[in-house]
Amino acid sequence: MNLLAEKLQKYHVILGSASARRKELLAGLDIPFEVRVKETNEFVDKSLALEEIPQSIAEQKFAALIPDLTDNDFLITADTLVFCGDRVIGKPKTKQDAFEMIRFLSGKKHIVVTGVCYGTKNHHKAFRCKSQVTFSEICDQDISYYIEKYKPMDKAGAYGVQEWIGYMGIEKIKGSYYNVMGLPVHMLYKKIVSFR
Amino acid sequence: MNLLAEKLQKYHVILGSASARRKELLAGLDIPFEVRVKETNEFVDKSLALEEIPQSIAEQKFAALIPDLTDNDFLITADTLVFCGDRVIGKPKTKQDAFEMIRFLSGKKHIVVTGVCYGTKNHHKAFRCKSQVTFSEICDQDISYYIEKYKPMDKAGAYGVQEWIGYMGIEKIKGSYYNVMGLPVHMLYKKIVSFR
Repeated sequence: MNLLAEKLQKYHVILGSASARRKELLAGLDIPFEVRVKETNEFVDKSLALEEIPQSIAEQKFAALIPDLTDNDFLITADTLVFCGDRVIGKPKTKQDAFEMIRFLSGKKHIVVTGVCYGTKNHHKAFRCKSQVTFSEICDQDISYYIEKYKPMDKAGAYGVQEWIGYMGIEKIKGSYYNVMGLPVHMLYKKIVSFR
Repeated sequence: MNLLAEKLQKYHVILGSASARRKELLAGLDIPFEVRVKETNEFVDKSLALEEIPQSIAEQKFAALIPDLTDNDFLITADTLVFCGDRVIGKPKTKQDAFEMIRFLSGKKHIVVTGVCYGTKNHHKAFRCKSQVTFSEICDQDISYYIEKYKPMDKAGAYGVQEWIGYMGIEKIKGSYYNVMGLPVHMLYKKIVSFR
């Protein structure tokens, strides 16, 4: 048995996220869990630095699920933010939005921060993880191809690192690839193993 | 249609590799292809720097398949090498080998170089791509868990970046994640689009 499975064997693990990528990533840590999602009114505290926002939202998602937790539940929530300079790149509302977002990111470096909150109903902690992504220059024809075929409307920054555009268009990553996908599993592993 | 599909529409694409990861990566570029494998007597030229070896082996794999190519075949071959300092980390022969390799890589940075050769029977080119991977400290219990469950005997360095140990144990990558998996798809895309 691995250290994480040992640590979590007395708990019932819940992933508080609707993201298919996060579900896949947590499953990759070889622990059993249930997905539970609750609508949260996310509040962005304007006094926070951009990098601090995802952790704050992960904490809000955690807080929203606390009333439903039993004593042996172990909850994990997360939020991911993409930004470039001081511009936050959210989820696109339309195909045109998506096109403009990717054109803006093309040929540039940007930052992806995921905030994670984890623990029990009585005690939880939080952390964040930051990666830098460099896109190569992507021509309009390829941006259109991607948007038509992959419809990345549910993704911050209008792209999935694990999709076609991540294959052909990402020159390099500095940091964790899985953090860019939506969950810094290497940090989560260590943090939960040492959780007390 | 994307630029790569446009470029390759007059060709029949062949991936000259038995690696399931390379097959998956090339498929991620959304082009149709066939896998064709031929035993190659790989010769390591001792005068080459370590970084140059994978490209040389990819070229040998390409040369071995040339006699079977028709005029409209477009072949891609690749080879990946893991090294740490001046020590080459090959494929483990036994579980004990695998254990020692991962223990050696644990808590250190190492380098992954993939060499790629691509083109037709009459004209081909080659390039290489380098990524740096940082492993966190992984305890013996977790190394054993990974080897027993995932049996990484077919993998250079005794690990798959896309498997459990890549999730829990890789702190960061500098460069391309897909290159570490076995094929630098972002470079391959650009190189083939501009192939002449």
